[in-house]
Amino acid sequence: MSNLEKALAALDADRQGALERLFHLLRFKSISTDPAYAPECASAADWLVGQLKELGFEASTRPTAGHPMVVGKAKAARPDAPHVLFYGHYDVQPVDPPELWNTDPFTPAIAEPEPDRKQIVARGAADDKGQLMTFLEACRAFRANGGLPCHISILFEGEEESGSTSLPAFLAQNGKELKADLMLVCDTNMWDRDTPLITCMLRGLVLEEVVIKAASRDLHSGMFGGPAVNPIHVLARVIAGLHDEDGRIALPGFYDDVPELPPEIKAQWAALDFSEAAFLGEVGLSVPAGEAEYSVLEQIWARPTCDVNGIVGGYTGQGSKTVLPAQASAKFSFRLVGKQNPEEIVQAFRDYVRKNLPDDCEAEFVSHGASPALSLPFRSEAIQRASRALEAEWGKPAVLAASGGSIPVVGLFKRELKMDSLMVGFGLDDDRIHSPNEKYELSSFQKGARSWARILAALAG
Amino acid sequence: MSNLEKALAALDADRQGALERLFHLLRFKSISTDPAYAPECASAADWLVGQLKELGFEASTRPTAGHPMVVGKAKAARPDAPHVLFYGHYDVQPVDPPELWNTDPFTPAIAEPEPDRKQIVARGAADDKGQLMTFLEACRAFRANGGLPCHISILFEGEEESGSTSLPAFLAQNGKELKADLMLVCDTNMWDRDTPLITCMLRGLVLEEVVIKAASRDLHSGMFGGPAVNPIHVLARVIAGLHDEDGRIALPGFYDDVPELPPEIKAQWAALDFSEAAFLGEVGLSVPAGEAEYSVLEQIWARPTCDVNGIVGGYTGQGSKTVLPAQASAKFSFRLVGKQNPEEIVQAFRDYVRKNLPDDCEAEFVSHGASPALSLPFRSEAIQRASRALEAEWGKPAVLAASGGSIPVVGLFKRELKMDSLMVGFGLDDDRIHSPNEKYELSSFQKGARSWARILAALAG
Repeated sequence: MSNLEKALAALDADRQGALERLFHLLRFKSISTDPAYAPECASAADWLVGQLKELGFEASTRPTAGHPMVVGKAKAARPDAPHVLFYGHYDVQPVDPPELWNTDPFTPAIAEPEPDRKQIVARGAADDKGQLMTFLEACRAFRANGGLPCHISILFEGEEESGSTSLPAFLAQNGKELKADLMLVCDTNMWDRDTPLITCMLRGLVLEEVVIKAASRDLHSGMFGGPAVNPIHVLARVIAGLHDEDGRIALPGFYDDVPELPPEIKAQWAALDFSEAAFLGEVGLSVPAGEAEYSVLEQIWARPTCDVNGIVGGYTGQGSKTVLPAQASAKFSFRLVGKQNPEEIVQAFRDYVRKNLPDDCEAEFVSHGASPALSLPFRSEAIQRASRALEAEWGKPAVLAASGGSIPVVGLFKRELKMDSLMVGFGLDDDRIHSPNEKYELSSFQKGARSWARILAALAG
Repeated sequence: MSNLEKALAALDADRQGALERLFHLLRFKSISTDPAYAPECASAADWLVGQLKELGFEASTRPTAGHPMVVGKAKAARPDAPHVLFYGHYDVQPVDPPELWNTDPFTPAIAEPEPDRKQIVARGAADDKGQLMTFLEACRAFRANGGLPCHISILFEGEEESGSTSLPAFLAQNGKELKADLMLVCDTNMWDRDTPLITCMLRGLVLEEVVIKAASRDLHSGMFGGPAVNPIHVLARVIAGLHDEDGRIALPGFYDDVPELPPEIKAQWAALDFSEAAFLGEVGLSVPAGEAEYSVLEQIWARPTCDVNGIVGGYTGQGSKTVLPAQASAKFSFRLVGKQNPEEIVQAFRDYVRKNLPDDCEAEFVSHGASPALSLPFRSEAIQRASRALEAEWGKPAVLAASGGSIPVVGLFKRELKMDSLMVGFGLDDDRIHSPNEKYELSSFQKGARSWARILAALAG
């Protein structure tokens, strides 16, 4: 029997103990955004330090300007093992409105919505206390069964739900201590209740605001309409020219660093139980509007986009006003993938706008941020090993997915510590995180812990 | 000596009397928008009735929900004379800020900014008491010199500066009594201090608001960016497609009823002392943006336009928000000329928008008004006669001009009473109407009265 098999057996044998430990953590009212709960946050952090010490970690809380960080470190059984940093957060969202909860948010309960399906119901059950404890339980199982397969560092944050305010400074000050070969992030979801998922890529984001300026003041359209250039028209032409008829973005060089999906990933996504009609139908749409030759999943996960998120100019109140405004502005966002360089995209965009300005118009640009896409290559060793480990646990291949949005902490670690993240989590889309009656599937908790045991073993080789 | 010559001589002989009468009217603080001045408005109306009676008119004030109307009627010497209705208003704008006036706004004074140039300074001197009195003085001059050349009806309004609130209902109730062959409106300006001007055309106006609706709610651009249609993009394409590269409006049939200017009018406008560079430069522009083959004056006076006066959609606050809005909207205005039919323009516009809607988008339209251009044909008898009369008085041809904006009362009389308006006035662009130190050139007042005497004689044949 291998150490992994022994660890898995230990997890199965101590399910009740694991649940009690999670319930203990769930009882802390660690609402980070409300200063009234600061002592509860501190207690949760202290309790986690105690847990880590029990598991043989060197561990301590670290003060910040906000709630404390929990930092732990433990050596692997073999000195040449890889070194991973596991990130989680012990703080939770507020519970409002409390009257919509079926049970007390901080008195964890087991619900059984249908036979043979159990759920842990509490604030933080899924986000992120349940997910976080899956990892600690995996560590616990190895402790008495040959020791940890990897060197493990731990960072539990207490302010994720209130903007991670203290994290950038903390990383800047403690980067050397936290640096590892790979970060493990479990703040993500499965494809469905039975299908594991690895989030391999997060799209990058460029946020640009443009102000088109024309006349020195607002003009009367009866007096100046015709000869005076209208900045709303100019802005509209700029926006209209950003996409071609096939939905592609018309900036020169925009697609130069956009990779095509590996065929096996494309095939996997095509085979997923994903209904484009249902996805769009839920928000009142029916026809995919993006690049014609890509599926909706590809468009969201693996293709870059350009959208105007806001536009304003002239008179926008009730009724009408015959004004030619002096300026008009719009906020643009670009989602980036692959190796697209945010600075180059910004430059291409600004060049395009300037090139399309008529006489008498100027453009002012305001940057609201620019970050590249983050990815572990689909065929990377870490993805391949984690993928095999998850398939062994769940009996079906892990979906190698991407995410259209961003996970700030992943970007932060990439920027500050040059660390890539392996994003594996066991949440479900219907976990009601941030909402009343948040839940975490009992199967996610139990098989999640087993999954981490398998992944740690797989990463160690 | 003709009656006209006698009347002109009488005007010259009684300049002092005319000035005293105007000063009397200017002393009424007839600020229509402030209820505190209602008694002053009533007094001004009563005084005007007295003046009209003195001139042989049947005259009375007529109560309204607001300030009274003054209505007067007098027969011409010859029964077969044409019948004109003269419109003016006795109310004035507030005087704020009073500290910027060099003299008391309601104590009329004569200023002499340069030798041989005198100005009447008071609130209402130009707008509209001075202009109104030019006409009454012309009537007075004929009274003792052969009688009026035309049948004359008079309507003086007391609410022009506060939205003419009571006028539509008054016209609806008293239309038959007020109906005449032609309306005379003196609320307009000269080309310059020495050059008379007839405003032959006012552009029409169609005001349309469009709301483009896409998804049933605002979406996260990370989650839906790409496949979800963005209504801001749709609206931008609609706006961008409304003009071709030469600045022409690209709606089918839009120019069908747009007349070309008569060559002599085009030549007259081209010869005017008008600097396109100065006109645009004053508002920070330098290059005419409208239809390439027309001059700026032609664009403003005689060509139709389409402008977006306001646009809004998505997030418009500080910073950024990665939202795909559910809708975006814009307010459009079309200036119409010639025989362009407002309803047909609305229809062509709505058809165009609908035709350019992609799948999953709807357009909602809100009309904020639609009115046709108003014109007396340049070559019409009334224009020709008035033009010759003005040339005789000023020693140079009258500019047969147009106006890019609208004069509500002209449209109202056209709609309610099917009456065309002959728009002749003696104001100047620098009269500071609505501002401190409003003035009216003494030459405008004196030669304006002589001009009306000549016009009345000319209209009578």
